[in-house]
Amino acid sequence: MNRVKAKFITLILLFTFSASYAQQHPGLFLTSQGMKEIKKSLGKYPVFDNSYLELKNIADAALRSEITVPIPKDGGGGYTHEKHKNNYYEMNAAGTLYQITGEKKYAQFVLDMLKKYAEIYPTLGTHPAQNSNTPGKLFWQALNEAVWLFHTANAYDCVYNFISLTDRAYIEKNLFYPMAEFISNGNANNYAVFNKMHNHGTWATASVGMIGYAMGDKNLVEKALYGSNKDGKAGFIRQLDVLFSPDGYFTEGPYYQRYAIWPFMTFAQVIQNQQPELNIFNYRNGILKKAVNTLIQSAYNGEIFYLNDALQKTYKTQEIVYAVDIAYKNDPTNKQLLDIARQQDSFIISGEGLATAKAVYKEKFNAFELKSTLLRDGQNGDEGGLAILRAGEGKTQTCLTYKATSHGLSHGHYDKLSIALFDNGNSILSDYGAARFLNIEPKSGGGYTKENHTFAAQTIAHNTVTVDEKSHFGGNIKTSSKFHSYIHYYNISNPDLQIVCGSEPNAYNGVKMLRTTALLNIKDFEFPIIIDIFSVNSDSVHTYDLPFYYKGHMVSTDFKYRKSVTELKTLGTSNGYQHLWLEASGKTNKQNANFTWVNGNRFYSITTLTNASTELLMTRTGANDPAFNLRSETAFMLRQPNVTNHSFISIIEPHGLYDLSREITSGFKSNITDIKLLKENESYTILKFSIQNGAKYIFTTINKDFDENKQHTVDFEGKSITFTGNYNITQIKE
Amino acid sequence: MNRVKAKFITLILLFTFSASYAQQHPGLFLTSQGMKEIKKSLGKYPVFDNSYLELKNIADAALRSEITVPIPKDGGGGYTHEKHKNNYYEMNAAGTLYQITGEKKYAQFVLDMLKKYAEIYPTLGTHPAQNSNTPGKLFWQALNEAVWLFHTANAYDCVYNFISLTDRAYIEKNLFYPMAEFISNGNANNYAVFNKMHNHGTWATASVGMIGYAMGDKNLVEKALYGSNKDGKAGFIRQLDVLFSPDGYFTEGPYYQRYAIWPFMTFAQVIQNQQPELNIFNYRNGILKKAVNTLIQSAYNGEIFYLNDALQKTYKTQEIVYAVDIAYKNDPTNKQLLDIARQQDSFIISGEGLATAKAVYKEKFNAFELKSTLLRDGQNGDEGGLAILRAGEGKTQTCLTYKATSHGLSHGHYDKLSIALFDNGNSILSDYGAARFLNIEPKSGGGYTKENHTFAAQTIAHNTVTVDEKSHFGGNIKTSSKFHSYIHYYNISNPDLQIVCGSEPNAYNGVKMLRTTALLNIKDFEFPIIIDIFSVNSDSVHTYDLPFYYKGHMVSTDFKYRKSVTELKTLGTSNGYQHLWLEASGKTNKQNANFTWVNGNRFYSITTLTNASTELLMTRTGANDPAFNLRSETAFMLRQPNVTNHSFISIIEPHGLYDLSREITSGFKSNITDIKLLKENESYTILKFSIQNGAKYIFTTINKDFDENKQHTVDFEGKSITFTGNYNITQIKE
Repeated sequence: MNRVKAKFITLILLFTFSASYAQQHPGLFLTSQGMKEIKKSLGKYPVFDNSYLELKNIADAALRSEITVPIPKDGGGGYTHEKHKNNYYEMNAAGTLYQITGEKKYAQFVLDMLKKYAEIYPTLGTHPAQNSNTPGKLFWQALNEAVWLFHTANAYDCVYNFISLTDRAYIEKNLFYPMAEFISNGNANNYAVFNKMHNHGTWATASVGMIGYAMGDKNLVEKALYGSNKDGKAGFIRQLDVLFSPDGYFTEGPYYQRYAIWPFMTFAQVIQNQQPELNIFNYRNGILKKAVNTLIQSAYNGEIFYLNDALQKTYKTQEIVYAVDIAYKNDPTNKQLLDIARQQDSFIISGEGLATAKAVYKEKFNAFELKSTLLRDGQNGDEGGLAILRAGEGKTQTCLTYKATSHGLSHGHYDKLSIALFDNGNSILSDYGAARFLNIEPKSGGGYTKENHTFAAQTIAHNTVTVDEKSHFGGNIKTSSKFHSYIHYYNISNPDLQIVCGSEPNAYNGVKMLRTTALLNIKDFEFPIIIDIFSVNSDSVHTYDLPFYYKGHMVSTDFKYRKSVTELKTLGTSNGYQHLWLEASGKTNKQNANFTWVNGNRFYSITTLTNASTELLMTRTGANDPAFNLRSETAFMLRQPNVTNHSFISIIEPHGLYDLSREITSGFKSNITDIKLLKENESYTILKFSIQNGAKYIFTTINKDFDENKQHTVDFEGKSITFTGNYNITQIKE
Repeated sequence: MNRVKAKFITLILLFTFSASYAQQHPGLFLTSQGMKEIKKSLGKYPVFDNSYLELKNIADAALRSEITVPIPKDGGGGYTHEKHKNNYYEMNAAGTLYQITGEKKYAQFVLDMLKKYAEIYPTLGTHPAQNSNTPGKLFWQALNEAVWLFHTANAYDCVYNFISLTDRAYIEKNLFYPMAEFISNGNANNYAVFNKMHNHGTWATASVGMIGYAMGDKNLVEKALYGSNKDGKAGFIRQLDVLFSPDGYFTEGPYYQRYAIWPFMTFAQVIQNQQPELNIFNYRNGILKKAVNTLIQSAYNGEIFYLNDALQKTYKTQEIVYAVDIAYKNDPTNKQLLDIARQQDSFIISGEGLATAKAVYKEKFNAFELKSTLLRDGQNGDEGGLAILRAGEGKTQTCLTYKATSHGLSHGHYDKLSIALFDNGNSILSDYGAARFLNIEPKSGGGYTKENHTFAAQTIAHNTVTVDEKSHFGGNIKTSSKFHSYIHYYNISNPDLQIVCGSEPNAYNGVKMLRTTALLNIKDFEFPIIIDIFSVNSDSVHTYDLPFYYKGHMVSTDFKYRKSVTELKTLGTSNGYQHLWLEASGKTNKQNANFTWVNGNRFYSITTLTNASTELLMTRTGANDPAFNLRSETAFMLRQPNVTNHSFISIIEPHGLYDLSREITSGFKSNITDIKLLKENESYTILKFSIQNGAKYIFTTINKDFDENKQHTVDFEGKSITFTGNYNITQIKE
């Protein structure tokens, strides 16, 4: 969709909004209809019943305890932080239980707690932790304040009719209005966030919009939907235009897509309930439904990809439960979502959750098809993208990610053209993700530790090239945010040769980087292999580093290396290098180097083209980490010093079997016997690789003028190959 | 059982042996009766069918391939090693398939392969790898030769009647007799092993005994059962007397108990089939059946304890499948074994496997009860023991092991009084186990790496005290093997206070070590806690180190430490210390130090008594490891320099919740506010600990004259406590 069209739709929304919306309670996220159906259905769908019981247990436990609303003091993970979080979960549970059971004790609990909050809220200044640019009042950051309001708006809606007019007026005046005002306009930073295209902005607008609907305040709702100025240049609807690409890729990356999907889908359901005429789930060709599918695709074995600032999160997180249940209810034709719901083994207690639960029990559905896909980045899908290549099925599937996106806002890393590899159920070549211990207060108040910036976000923490020990764009987010990488071609039409080619011309002045990565099924190998060609070109002399962060235990090399045995020193002094211990280094006089490790019951090898100057380094994270904030992770790093142009040409190969239980080992050696660069110029890269069994292959890629239909003839070793398109693989006999 | 009685039984066996045994084929491990029942039962028990299909697939794949019997060349994990291993699995599978299906192609395959072996065997010298004191011919060590014969004897028995007299004579003369001779008497070392009390001896005698029975050669069988001199001073029966304690503990530890249980149980079943009059499964009060139960008890969540030389092994390994199926068949009253069989999800294809499979499908049975138990070590149960303390049920059970055994032969470690802790499904305080990459040839030929001796076996690799940076008994196996630790008392009568107390007076000249460790359920704590008192006493001045190897990520300390940030150095230069990087060190001016880490979704703290001299060190393995043979593991180490007497007094406490998925954190701080040593002398240790909620407890242990019935009155802080027995805990009010 182009920008003109998007604007047009925004105008339509502005226009239609003046129609009034229902003032029914519950009618926000939960609906009377949904509650009725749940009452009738309890006892029929065991997993739904379990989820209901979980909620009931939270509510009942809350009712048994004293209501405590402490004066805010602690950071993430600390007592007051966790208490205020528990409180909104408890109010939400009790509100829902009131609606389902009709028992007044639940409503009374919510009312009592709300009054306590209304008592203290007007007395609060900004939170004492002072750990954030956008501090909250109840919490160290305003984000958590929004999440509090998001849940509490639901609770309020549930007990709205139970509360007297006087109490409502008291609570709204002392708690909800001040909080909505604080979140949307409490200070310059909060105002900016509320109007920002960022997941924090989504939480802010969703929460203000929800309390607006709950209180019947159109002014708040309009601001939430269309920004503080109500002009559609900001607000929730604009976020739908800007934050997702046409492929449903969220610009901050999969980890924050998971987090943002919660307010996106929940608030959308609220809008659907309150203003069905906005037809929100079909907005922008159903971008929200697409975003849910894309999020599910952005995972390996149910674990969301570790890209940008990311921690371990699975399909089972409550936000993805919300996303799947709401998406299914609003598009029951998307039956593969039921496979995810089944894996989640949990439902939300709402009409959406019930509809999904019913379907899981009654409908026939297939496994969610995790497939190779290119997720274009950028509002218009023209800012690079995240390529996902997959081979095989189920838990042992091979999956390669190739990241050539835009920066990804404040949670982005300097990781242009970085790859990660999963295979046989395990992470094989990994992205560090974030340096953070979420909600563990002694670890930087539960927020990002400083090593997140000094290491995790830096280029050298990623499986891509760092030039002269400096990060992409000098590690400057403003510069990095101006550019994006390019995907030149992406072809998965042949399942036995899936390939992606991208470039990054702006990360370094005068240096161009082009990476072509292919996932191949070749009959000579037991498992799919990866061919990886990373070309760096410059007119001036540089040092190029390409690390491969491998998971597992190092087994062998075919080159000599010297390991530091009595003393470890850092590899460098800045830009992430200060965090790497240099464990070992070597060189080889052969034209290839081989590095093998073992992970799970399989071996993995990187065989890479070398010359006499290539330095082969082995590193471990953990240096300059005074507070034990880094995980200890290992890399095999290729360093090419003092060159203008260089291509790192590698084959990454899973092989063999290491069955410790049955004590069976086979194929611990790479099957690659030789990689040779036959020809390389600005137009072509031609390489030959040879296999243990005698087979030889020529692999050719085009380095410019990409065209799927153009015919090429390339010469090498007195032979020639003619092919159509951007790449070719041919078996040859010698 | 005392020695006189044991000798008497041996004499009975010698006497009864002269009775001849059946010459029926199959009749070795498989029996005609068993085969008939399997034929009838296929299709009835799906898991048994799967196991059958697995075996059939091995046989069918073998028949499709060319028979290859390579000249031996490679070490463990190398091509010829794995090929010869595959060959015996294939013969075993084909032999069994022949008996079940009657199809001659299977028998022909075994015959053809045996002839190939018979062809080359007489031409072989000792294996070229020269990696072992007891080299084999087909394999780098004679042990594997025995395992080869063990499996092949079965295959031979299965096809015996199919093979012509001439072929039998050829194969026996050129292959089996020379191999049996080589294993039992090929050279001085092999002779010694054959007559040794060690798992290698068990494999040797079982394999020679089995081929003896298969060929109908009483001479070989007698040697196998009673040693080369047939006097009962060596051989399989003597191993049953010596290698197991009366509690069924195998002196080499659980990992090798797992390995040895295979020939023990299999050969026992062969003896039962061939000479039922020996009543082997009831020998020594049913020591073999006891040993199987003990092995199952020596595990956490199905993983065999990592003690002595050990790698990751679970209940699912084939050797434990053999053990469980054979044990159940020979004692169907032991129904809890069916729970293990169910977890194994696999059966042996024999009458024993079928009987167990039937029972799993048809019988009612309870979960195998993993309980606190003391496994005494030593032939007479008087050489210390392994204490296991457990609290809670199922996968989250808390389990502490306390090792005060004898050395454990060649696979023993210098680990007197070492503890390990499991909780909530995870390893929390760990034993390094072995430094070995089993069957990965580039790693020291698949055998133990040299770091196994230089680190893994050394005292400092264990959660026990090292004195003056020297290992127990100077790291000398001959000295260590002369002694054993002592268990003074072990009491689990109160499930809320389980306790073990042991000592080691001989590991260092003039130093006595006494460790009292208790697993307590106290109402003030959410999870069981551990009180650990490690007292070291000497007349002379020493430095005492007590490391806690923790798994997980360090969270916080309540003392200041300095971490090495730009350079790492080793903690020491020998006895394992050369393998430790000193990452950080600190001191405290408080009387306690607290160290907290996170593992899985739970926090763990060690709170320990300190004084101004106590050094608090944090280390990581990996120094002086030129070939990347060590795993990277972390320890929190207490060092008390230059003292005569010292007690390390610590409370180890699981606490809180770290739910990354739901983003809920609670209780990341230890609940212990204070530990105070009130009194310590040669008779008593009295300590007081205080809890966040204000509760205070006095814990008292007796340090000598242990007596469960003796009454004590102890004084402290103007109060006194009177109790009966060796220890006491009392809550006090102040």
